[in-house]
Amino acid sequence: MYIALDAMGGDKAPQSNVEGAVLFAKEFRVGVYLVGDRDILQKELDRYGVKDLPIEIIHAEDVIEMDEPPSVAVRRKRRSSMYVAGKLVREGKAQAFVSAGNTGAAMAISKFVVGAAEGIERPGIAVAFPTKKGKPTVLIDVGANVDCRPMHLVYFAVMGHTYVKEILRSSQNPKVGILSIGEEEGKGNDLVKDTYPLLKMTGLNFVGNAEGRDIFTGDFDVIVCDGFVGNIVLKTSESLGSIIVDMIKQEVRKSIISKIGAALMLPALKRFKKKADYAEYGGAPLLGTTGTCIITHGSADAKAIKNALKVASQFEETHFNDKLKENLENLLPKELRV
Amino acid sequence: MYIALDAMGGDKAPQSNVEGAVLFAKEFRVGVYLVGDRDILQKELDRYGVKDLPIEIIHAEDVIEMDEPPSVAVRRKRRSSMYVAGKLVREGKAQAFVSAGNTGAAMAISKFVVGAAEGIERPGIAVAFPTKKGKPTVLIDVGANVDCRPMHLVYFAVMGHTYVKEILRSSQNPKVGILSIGEEEGKGNDLVKDTYPLLKMTGLNFVGNAEGRDIFTGDFDVIVCDGFVGNIVLKTSESLGSIIVDMIKQEVRKSIISKIGAALMLPALKRFKKKADYAEYGGAPLLGTTGTCIITHGSADAKAIKNALKVASQFEETHFNDKLKENLENLLPKELRV
Repeated sequence: MYIALDAMGGDKAPQSNVEGAVLFAKEFRVGVYLVGDRDILQKELDRYGVKDLPIEIIHAEDVIEMDEPPSVAVRRKRRSSMYVAGKLVREGKAQAFVSAGNTGAAMAISKFVVGAAEGIERPGIAVAFPTKKGKPTVLIDVGANVDCRPMHLVYFAVMGHTYVKEILRSSQNPKVGILSIGEEEGKGNDLVKDTYPLLKMTGLNFVGNAEGRDIFTGDFDVIVCDGFVGNIVLKTSESLGSIIVDMIKQEVRKSIISKIGAALMLPALKRFKKKADYAEYGGAPLLGTTGTCIITHGSADAKAIKNALKVASQFEETHFNDKLKENLENLLPKELRV
Repeated sequence: MYIALDAMGGDKAPQSNVEGAVLFAKEFRVGVYLVGDRDILQKELDRYGVKDLPIEIIHAEDVIEMDEPPSVAVRRKRRSSMYVAGKLVREGKAQAFVSAGNTGAAMAISKFVVGAAEGIERPGIAVAFPTKKGKPTVLIDVGANVDCRPMHLVYFAVMGHTYVKEILRSSQNPKVGILSIGEEEGKGNDLVKDTYPLLKMTGLNFVGNAEGRDIFTGDFDVIVCDGFVGNIVLKTSESLGSIIVDMIKQEVRKSIISKIGAALMLPALKRFKKKADYAEYGGAPLLGTTGTCIITHGSADAKAIKNALKVASQFEETHFNDKLKENLENLLPKELRV
């Protein structure tokens, strides 16, 4: 098995990416293609003085910048590390694609270069949110698709179910909900109202509407929504978390006693941060593509890159795409299959 | 001026509602109709031994429960405190309606009993979020309307502009954005793409797309969205805030040193909580109705009720609806007016 890592993508690339790949290859002995500028990557790799690891450099002279639109990534910069990494999967030379680069571009590469799996019209990006109960809640789709149709949400539900069961392993019979504004059936926008009866027809453990607050309670294992809503929820949550911390810090700074208090609380705050950090789950997979695509945070450090590579290898080892295909066949009645 | 207060709505009703009304009437000498069970309310009122306040009880024998669907509030329970309070505004006997009861029901009463103002097709509910910069960002609509058309969002923008300028007074030329998934024009779902050019045609200070993270940065004064997305954002944010606090508490409890630290930080945490609590802004107004409608939290205490009544009186004193009408005429080109 080989994983194609976009070695130039991310705020801390290529240092963290190379270090993460080395840590991963040492521990798991799974192959990694480091894709990017050969000279730069070789120099980084030499720092670790490792020769017997299954790491190979694949040259790509260009880089997708963090602010470039996805269309540039897919249509113009075909010699970028991200494009070349995606192409390795498309051509069957690698089984998984991992990037910490520009998220929109990485999604576009996953969708249009790696490509959708057979029988999947719209791959969806899943994020595991930390919850009160400790086990994660998966929100899907968080941005790969806007203006979805009901059938897309039904497919996201099966993808989320499979992700929870096979990769996160936090539930054997995942509770699936649909994001809406009110608990009762019949509440929501047209998309929700049209999707609800379809989800009831499936063999999924569909428990009904979920509200915004349910993302963090742990009462649901999977919550489906269209990518427009999901992306806004994801970005709102990420930023609210960091702003709450900032605002508390501001208040703490106003008195020496508060400062001492904060210092004493530091270990507890660090434990909290670790729990709340979804990089712990190894980034966000784009489900429903040929091969595995993992998109991780731009701020990923070596540990986060290693985690992302580990999750990518788990997808392959568990034969995720075969399981997904089986689940689509077993959980969806014939009339709901594409 | 009289404000009709749903005296039986909310978790702490009628005690907090009556106390809040007394505090408000004492300080501002504005009239309040306490709507609800006459005997219960009279008994509560007697506890304060006040006789010269402009508070009057209006009897209504029924109560809308927190879990009853909005349709019951509007169509069936016509002798509820909420319905009767709304009707007082509709009939011109009161100028404003305030409720801490069942939010969905209060919205329905505001829309269908109080009714939309002339020239407004869809009233929108606005919430002021605390931001990093200290000044609030208004999100509108947070749940009064699902499946909006572009024109509705344009109207929400003018409502939000007027709210910021006349009531919150946090900006004289409010920066208006539209909630989307990416900064550039052209990013977003069909509703966003169709609304964007219309907002550009207005006289508003329209600055383009806002992302989920922008709700808390303070870079925008007003962010418009449809009520489905807005409601999910509101509920996600509310619950995330309380869950972060819970998770930190859990971690803190694990060690005595952390506990001491937390105790020392308490004043700072309280100041933070006050800043982050949007009840400080007096609840959420439903903009674009005949008269003023303020919906406040179910958990509202006497201070929150007093704040809500105060904001309601500000709406009347500033002649908000006249200002809104003027702004619709001045800021929208003729072809965008209903």
